Amino acid sequence: MSLQFLGLAGSLRAKSTNRGLLRAAQGQLPAGVSLALAELADVPFYNADLTEKPAAVQRVLAQLAAADALVLACPEYNYSLAPALKNMLDWASREPDNALLAGKPVAIMGAGGGMGTSRAQYHLRQVCVYLDLHPLNKPEVFANAFAGGFDEHGDVRDERLLGQLAAQMQALKDWTLRLRA
Amino acid sequence: MSLQFLGLAGSLRAKSTNRGLLRAAQGQLPAGVSLALAELADVPFYNADLTEKPAAVQRVLAQLAAADALVLACPEYNYSLAPALKNMLDWASREPDNALLAGKPVAIMGAGGGMGTSRAQYHLRQVCVYLDLHPLNKPEVFANAFAGGFDEHGDVRDERLLGQLAAQMQALKDWTLRLRA
Amino acid sequence: MSLQFLGLAGSLRAKSTNRGLLRAAQGQLPAGVSLALAELADVPFYNADLTEKPAAVQRVLAQLAAADALVLACPEYNYSLAPALKNMLDWASREPDNALLAGKPVAIMGAGGGMGTSRAQYHLRQVCVYLDLHPLNKPEVFANAFAGGFDEHGDVRDERLLGQLAAQMQALKDWTLRLRA
Amino acid sequence: MSLQFLGLAGSLRAKSTNRGLLRAAQGQLPAGVSLALAELADVPFYNADLTEKPAAVQRVLAQLAAADALVLACPEYNYSLAPALKNMLDWASREPDNALLAGKPVAIMGAGGGMGTSRAQYHLRQVCVYLDLHPLNKPEVFANAFAGGFDEHGDVRDERLLGQLAAQMQALKDWTLRLRA
Repeated sequence: MSLQFLGLAGSLRAKSTNRGLLRAAQGQLPAGVSLALAELADVPFYNADLTEKPAAVQRVLAQLAAADALVLACPEYNYSLAPALKNMLDWASREPDNALLAGKPVAIMGAGGGMGTSRAQYHLRQVCVYLDLHPLNKPEVFANAFAGGFDEHGDVRDERLLGQLAAQMQALKDWTLRLRA
Repeated sequence: MSLQFLGLAGSLRAKSTNRGLLRAAQGQLPAGVSLALAELADVPFYNADLTEKPAAVQRVLAQLAAADALVLACPEYNYSLAPALKNMLDWASREPDNALLAGKPVAIMGAGGGMGTSRAQYHLRQVCVYLDLHPLNKPEVFANAFAGGFDEHGDVRDERLLGQLAAQMQALKDWTLRLRA
Repeated sequence: MSLQFLGLAGSLRAKSTNRGLLRAAQGQLPAGVSLALAELADVPFYNADLTEKPAAVQRVLAQLAAADALVLACPEYNYSLAPALKNMLDWASREPDNALLAGKPVAIMGAGGGMGTSRAQYHLRQVCVYLDLHPLNKPEVFANAFAGGFDEHGDVRDERLLGQLAAQMQALKDWTLRLRA
Repeated sequence: MSLQFLGLAGSLRAKSTNRGLLRAAQGQLPAGVSLALAELADVPFYNADLTEKPAAVQRVLAQLAAADALVLACPEYNYSLAPALKNMLDWASREPDNALLAGKPVAIMGAGGGMGTSRAQYHLRQVCVYLDLHPLNKPEVFANAFAGGFDEHGDVRDERLLGQLAAQMQALKDWTLRLRA
């Protein structure tokens, strides 16, 4: 049996540390788990007047349909969520019966200032209630983006953080199997 | 002396009830107050890699610079903020010294389900802490968009709600003068 | 097999509608489930200087140890949690390895003003993250205490609300079995 | 002209670092400001069935009546508010017309784990909306209680933290005068 995780990062810039967290998590996966990454750069704002789903949206929706669990890399902008991440979740929530999200396990991580995007992460957890997602309680991953743990490409260079990511990916595997039983 | 308010609505669809709230507020202003509306439809996602500010962003930033106070019409998507509103605040927050926002008074209103977007409004209030905005405590405006108070164009048709908007605009005027003293 | 739920209500007054919700839930249990109620009236404020656990605390801790899942009746005071409920959770959190709470399923309900204590419930959900409790996402129970649904003793007199309680207790049973598998 | 601040700390233990923050703030006051401290140790849980206000409650209510502004030292227990602080605010909110709190300026500080009680402080800010209190946006004070900044009595021993307290007390004085104008 194998499990497929899908990672979504809320930051659009090329050298984003939040995208770096997801790349690093790809190198810390437990056995039997793969982690694909969604591309949000071309996803437009949700607008109920749009009668067709843009191709960039459709691609991510297809990835969500195939995912057993989600890995959300959650930047913090002005003490709350990054619009690009929230917006993709809003698009996904419009599918009939919330079929792409309901009941799926989630891991949340984030890189930012000294509090590691915690304020945004708690907002994201409230969003998960409505979306009927099941976020891991622990371990929480709060990475400081400005303390030497990332290189200039946004890649993780901190062993302790890599260990946290490995522990969280293992916990997400366990949680996914527990919820599926 | 006259005061200039600027309204921003988080929903992009043409018949949005949140845009309707702002139009209705324009008809309920106290003496000496005007309320302009920002257009967010063409504002792209903030991305630190963008080296130039798009024209749609520049237009709203100029409106913000001229505003004495803000009126935020806050939809609720999946128990949190609408990305289009949050995103415009994120753009504005990048100006040097937070000069377009710091210290400005704010009124928050919203139209949505039975709780009137309250969950999103409390997230918005947390954003205001970082942005150094000063939201009114009272009156809070929580409008039910599905109980007959709006017509098919998103315009307010409920006298009681109009009265709440009038009271909030008066309170914002008073709060603006109090903070400026 | 049988499951034991434990109910805790945040209000101390005799005719509390939140205590009424728990009594009503006792009449809406699915097969194989019992619901005991904790008594918080004599539980003092947690204080790290206290070297012995008061008897009223010990009684509830013993009930928590025996419980398969928790039912939290959450009043809202001034847009946040009732101290008596939060305080008992704080006491419980001090047990070694968080053994009385970690991993347990939870249902949250509340009776109050028009928003049915929702603001307090989202604060409670954040507390559950640290306590490693697993609250149900749905159904949420938001009861209006001032619209005729309760009698003068705080007992539920509304059939629709009783149906919501029955649905939530069934969901908590299902969630408990799913997490235990 | 002189201003009177009242400090309330949410922790009851003798060597509390949050009480220590308030004592330290007393040594960092700007000219023309005094800071009295409330004693919450004997304040019982609010209970609507109580027909008389206990003496310990009456003493704090009298202090609140005399205060021009509040200084709230906010511990974090399990990612939310300390019950003793929330409970005193709940008692105060029951006065007719919210006369003891409405419109008063507030400064919020806290000592705790690595995030300095920030999670609890944002819950407290939501409480302030209903209570019609006006918390300072900046500076926020998030003190780490476990990194050498406090001695064994809970007294502040960190110069940088003392400077933050001085800056916050100055900001509270300015904010109080601005709101009163």
